[in-house]
Amino acid sequence: MKHITIIGVGLIGGSLALDLRTLFPEAHVKGIDASQEHIEQAMQLQVIDAQGTLKDVHLADLVILAVPVDVTARILPEILDAIGDHTIVMDMGSTKEAICNSVTNHPNRRNFIACHPIAGTEFSGPNAAIKNLYRDKTNIICEVEKTAFKLQEQALDIFRNLGMRIRYMDPVSHDKHIAYMSHLSHISSFMLGKTVIDKEKNEKDIFDMAGSGFASTVRLAKSNPITWTSIFKQNKENILETLDEYIANLEGFKSLMEADDFKGVFKEMENTNHIKQILKGID
Amino acid sequence: MKHITIIGVGLIGGSLALDLRTLFPEAHVKGIDASQEHIEQAMQLQVIDAQGTLKDVHLADLVILAVPVDVTARILPEILDAIGDHTIVMDMGSTKEAICNSVTNHPNRRNFIACHPIAGTEFSGPNAAIKNLYRDKTNIICEVEKTAFKLQEQALDIFRNLGMRIRYMDPVSHDKHIAYMSHLSHISSFMLGKTVIDKEKNEKDIFDMAGSGFASTVRLAKSNPITWTSIFKQNKENILETLDEYIANLEGFKSLMEADDFKGVFKEMENTNHIKQILKGID
Repeated sequence: MKHITIIGVGLIGGSLALDLRTLFPEAHVKGIDASQEHIEQAMQLQVIDAQGTLKDVHLADLVILAVPVDVTARILPEILDAIGDHTIVMDMGSTKEAICNSVTNHPNRRNFIACHPIAGTEFSGPNAAIKNLYRDKTNIICEVEKTAFKLQEQALDIFRNLGMRIRYMDPVSHDKHIAYMSHLSHISSFMLGKTVIDKEKNEKDIFDMAGSGFASTVRLAKSNPITWTSIFKQNKENILETLDEYIANLEGFKSLMEADDFKGVFKEMENTNHIKQILKGID
Repeated sequence: MKHITIIGVGLIGGSLALDLRTLFPEAHVKGIDASQEHIEQAMQLQVIDAQGTLKDVHLADLVILAVPVDVTARILPEILDAIGDHTIVMDMGSTKEAICNSVTNHPNRRNFIACHPIAGTEFSGPNAAIKNLYRDKTNIICEVEKTAFKLQEQALDIFRNLGMRIRYMDPVSHDKHIAYMSHLSHISSFMLGKTVIDKEKNEKDIFDMAGSGFASTVRLAKSNPITWTSIFKQNKENILETLDEYIANLEGFKSLMEADDFKGVFKEMENTNHIKQILKGID
């Protein structure tokens, strides 16, 4: 890996760039970003060496796409048009179906590996980039059979060296399940934040009542709205389904309370405590 | 403080016991708990020195009530019946109106100080007790004017020595605002956990997709159902109001998505990002 191009030098792309620089100390890392300010920050923070352009991606051994998922789906075909024979192109997006579909019939489909590393923080931009963000995290790879064997191998070597667990899924299943395991949490958190801000906006002292429980539940409401609008757009149908089920469960809980059925309320919580076992080792 | 009695030796009472033992190394700390197993665990962990009974609370300089809030409201009058002239009784409950009302006309009302230290973790029982749980946390005191001046002073000294910030509120306002700042978060988290478990119960591999964002949002769904049923019962009307507003906000978000109004979706999230400033210093 001598030439690496990172498209999108924020939290996701920037963090990966930092790890790749450790892994390939000899590599020259170029960055491309819609924001010139981010490019300059990324250079200053030594996340990248220089600014690149889409025109010179044919020189890259590895191209990382870490931009909002609708931008990825739009520019991925152009990038596959422009690359060299042995260039690996990988995306990092939180949706996979639209992105995979955007290049199904592209003659260079074999150069692309569709990835979703399940890692992140609620912060964004090059300043949010941190080393080892991907260590011990899961990377979901979709349609691996469509990537050239040799390029698969190189990509998997990189993930192994970053300390990631690999899982293979088809893009439709990925988008369906990730709606439950990630996208819904973001909406529940954003709407919790909205509910509290709307109610308490004129009572600043009230926020002294916020404890670590509230902070944890509302943490994702700090996330980048550009990133997440794009995800919600691309995974609309799956997310609407999860929202319907979530709202129905909240309505159910409310009905139990209204009916003074506190045995029922207890049971709902006791059953859900099972999440302890499920989350073991994640947080 | 020579004699301290802790009623309820779980996370809240047990953690306070640990700090009080550091603060008053000469004190003899007795524990009372509905679970004999918890008493034995608490003795083994040196959270308490011995098992106490409600009959000898008249010997205590300080009695801490750290049991579910409905139990507190029920037993507080009996405890005030039984105490000595200079005993301080404090509760740690997450609701304040019903507890304060339970002793409004009690002849020993002046011995009681109504507290809500906003501190905790998602774990429970004596094993969950940790030192310094209360350091840098907010303690909300209600109806402070009803506590004898000398006992107020002693209690406030203890809180200061534990490193707590003090805020004064009336119990009705406390219960109204804490519904937004704490109780609603627990329901949103429990119902998120339920939605995901219901959907994915037959697909164990799916939980490999859980990342730190999901873990953070669903953390409170590990909380003790006994504690929380009791809180939801006592603060029912306020919580139902917050639930209505939360569900309306989720429905609103869903409608924006259904209408493909992604500018609106973006705006909702951008406005809620303001939570960053609000939470500064909490997590």
